[in-house]
Amino acid sequence: MTGPVGSTVDGARRAYIALSCLVEPGNRDLGIAVTQDGPVRTLDRLLAGRLPGRLLAAAAPRLRAEHPLRIADAASAEADRLGARLVTPLDKEWPAQLADLVRISFETDRRIDRDTFPPLCLWVRGSWPLADVLQRSVAVVGARAATEYGDHVATELAYGLAERGWTVVSGGAYGIDAAAHRGALAANGTTVAVLACGVDRPYPAGNTNLFERIAETGLLISEWPPGAEPHRHRFLIRNRVIAALTRGTVIVEAAARSGATATLRRATQLRRAAMAVPGPVTSAMSVGTHEWLRRDDTRLVTGWQHVLEEVGAIGTDLAPVPRGPEHAHDRLDAGSAQVLEAVPLRRVASPDDIAANAGLAVPDALRALGVLLAGGYVVQRHGGYTLAPAGPPTRIAPAGERHEAKRSDDTAPG
Amino acid sequence: MTGPVGSTVDGARRAYIALSCLVEPGNRDLGIAVTQDGPVRTLDRLLAGRLPGRLLAAAAPRLRAEHPLRIADAASAEADRLGARLVTPLDKEWPAQLADLVRISFETDRRIDRDTFPPLCLWVRGSWPLADVLQRSVAVVGARAATEYGDHVATELAYGLAERGWTVVSGGAYGIDAAAHRGALAANGTTVAVLACGVDRPYPAGNTNLFERIAETGLLISEWPPGAEPHRHRFLIRNRVIAALTRGTVIVEAAARSGATATLRRATQLRRAAMAVPGPVTSAMSVGTHEWLRRDDTRLVTGWQHVLEEVGAIGTDLAPVPRGPEHAHDRLDAGSAQVLEAVPLRRVASPDDIAANAGLAVPDALRALGVLLAGGYVVQRHGGYTLAPAGPPTRIAPAGERHEAKRSDDTAPG
Repeated sequence: MTGPVGSTVDGARRAYIALSCLVEPGNRDLGIAVTQDGPVRTLDRLLAGRLPGRLLAAAAPRLRAEHPLRIADAASAEADRLGARLVTPLDKEWPAQLADLVRISFETDRRIDRDTFPPLCLWVRGSWPLADVLQRSVAVVGARAATEYGDHVATELAYGLAERGWTVVSGGAYGIDAAAHRGALAANGTTVAVLACGVDRPYPAGNTNLFERIAETGLLISEWPPGAEPHRHRFLIRNRVIAALTRGTVIVEAAARSGATATLRRATQLRRAAMAVPGPVTSAMSVGTHEWLRRDDTRLVTGWQHVLEEVGAIGTDLAPVPRGPEHAHDRLDAGSAQVLEAVPLRRVASPDDIAANAGLAVPDALRALGVLLAGGYVVQRHGGYTLAPAGPPTRIAPAGERHEAKRSDDTAPG
Repeated sequence: MTGPVGSTVDGARRAYIALSCLVEPGNRDLGIAVTQDGPVRTLDRLLAGRLPGRLLAAAAPRLRAEHPLRIADAASAEADRLGARLVTPLDKEWPAQLADLVRISFETDRRIDRDTFPPLCLWVRGSWPLADVLQRSVAVVGARAATEYGDHVATELAYGLAERGWTVVSGGAYGIDAAAHRGALAANGTTVAVLACGVDRPYPAGNTNLFERIAETGLLISEWPPGAEPHRHRFLIRNRVIAALTRGTVIVEAAARSGATATLRRATQLRRAAMAVPGPVTSAMSVGTHEWLRRDDTRLVTGWQHVLEEVGAIGTDLAPVPRGPEHAHDRLDAGSAQVLEAVPLRRVASPDDIAANAGLAVPDALRALGVLLAGGYVVQRHGGYTLAPAGPPTRIAPAGERHEAKRSDDTAPG
């Protein structure tokens, strides 16, 4: 138990769980490490102190107290005790669409937009397989201090979507979130609450009955282990998961420059459908939604019919909603874009050549190439780099995990 | 009085007035004739029976009763009697932006979208010069059966615009129109009612007090002579003038597929700013506005600040609001577009060559060339045609009228 982590499927799964317990979700440094080396090697490097200092510092407190594999096993036992389960990228029910978060992690400015990597592990209460439940899903979110109008509209919207077999995802908060969950439940539909705290004690306590009903017929999901408190920053980190799990996000009410629009922003970054319900211009609770509707990338919707127009026909696969041509360059930070410019399209260039062309030192170029590689912008060939044939893929499996995932499928009990 | 119409400025002005009294406003055949030959020659041809049969038939009833110049003089006398005045394209105060209607007359399908040519003459009550009053103006229009919410929003919007020196243009109807006029009046601002009947008896009679206040401080405008009844089709014809006079149109409330959105449609065709105020999705009176807000070319506005963002900074000239690149071909009927394809860019082609290239008979090609010429798509050089250097101009003076208009400026009393 104190030796190396090992390389079995079980070992990889335990590594995912352990890593998710050691560091706050979305962590960029950890995300890059796992994307490049996989969970087992990353955990080995963590134990050996061969990772960025701030990442080691973040993991240190729990790491000093307990060995990672013991942490993973304790988490599994705790999940059993709570009637919950742990789901990792190796499990069949893992929602593949979460991988889209890798791209926005590279494309957004890390100084203002941190912690956007995909979860490494999800705690789940409820009996349905995650991926199936979320295959056709829409997020309905909005203000906690909703008006009667907003409550009404969110309930109707969720009812209509759920009645047509769509899963309604929201954040379990008071106001619009609760109305959306209730609307879906009223239609005997499926609803999923993505929490910013442990699934053992969903927040807010005033919605406890609602959470119990959701757990019985739908799913309660969290990236945080049981006992985790709903700290303010966790809501913002959580929002990326709501946006990434669903085909589109509808915001029903939001005050000016409200946090309630954060999920909509993520949906836009993820190129998911971004939708908003208008309201009276005299209502403070519609100022935020109207701000978003004045943007070209947010579609006005007045009911479930309009939402279904945006998220696609029933039964089709997850497809990116067309939003006009986009250039990979536009979405990268300046350094990575500079290196991307220097990577040739139909031939292979060495890192030295690319660094020279980009006018950068070789270590800086290599670092950017790692980012571009992980984001699917470039591929490695014969020891050099060339542009990926068709830009970044929409589904990026963590490098080195594809094989393990396949093995997991083969051996999983079904 | 029974001889030829004559060619003096006064003759041209009387010809405009006479023609406007003989045929319903917006008439396509008359518009093309005047655009190509000017009012004097057009009236001569009308008297000689050398115009399309349906146009002769339309003018026949009044023409049999009275000579055109007598009709013009009677109209002038009637205007004097009513404290009104007649304004034609030869007058300094004529709003030049009405000429943009020539372009949409050629670009829209004549079978469904008739009577879109600019007015030949306007009846005006109120002391301010038309062009000055309308230089910085916005149309605020909407449903007659407005809700309290719509009334409130239209009033506030108009108040804010008028307070900042913008003229509020509307149609004088019950509901949103009246609220807009009242809001501007409450701010001691300028408001203009564009009527679909004579200025002697503005419709609806229930707004008579409102019309009197508008005439005292702003303007009452009509294309129809005194006594003209507000027939249903006249409202639709009138709407193009509201859209063309202003820099943008805001719609406040409209039911589904409502006629209240007709002015917004014209604004879009004219490439003016098209704006709509959202409302509760539960309100039938906002279904039409939301329909329009789901289009890419309509901007959501919640107050005068947003409107001013769309129509441009204070004091700037009328400028087309950027709406992304557009191709002339996209807006022409199939026959004209076919001929336009056959006109070369940097050399001159004869009508015969163009007809051959377009695969059309020479008379058909010539007819299309007339349309393209009047619309500013092509220019004549050395007896042939070539593409206009930069597409259709935004301001198209009626052909043959530019010189007369200049003379009018020179001789007008100031």
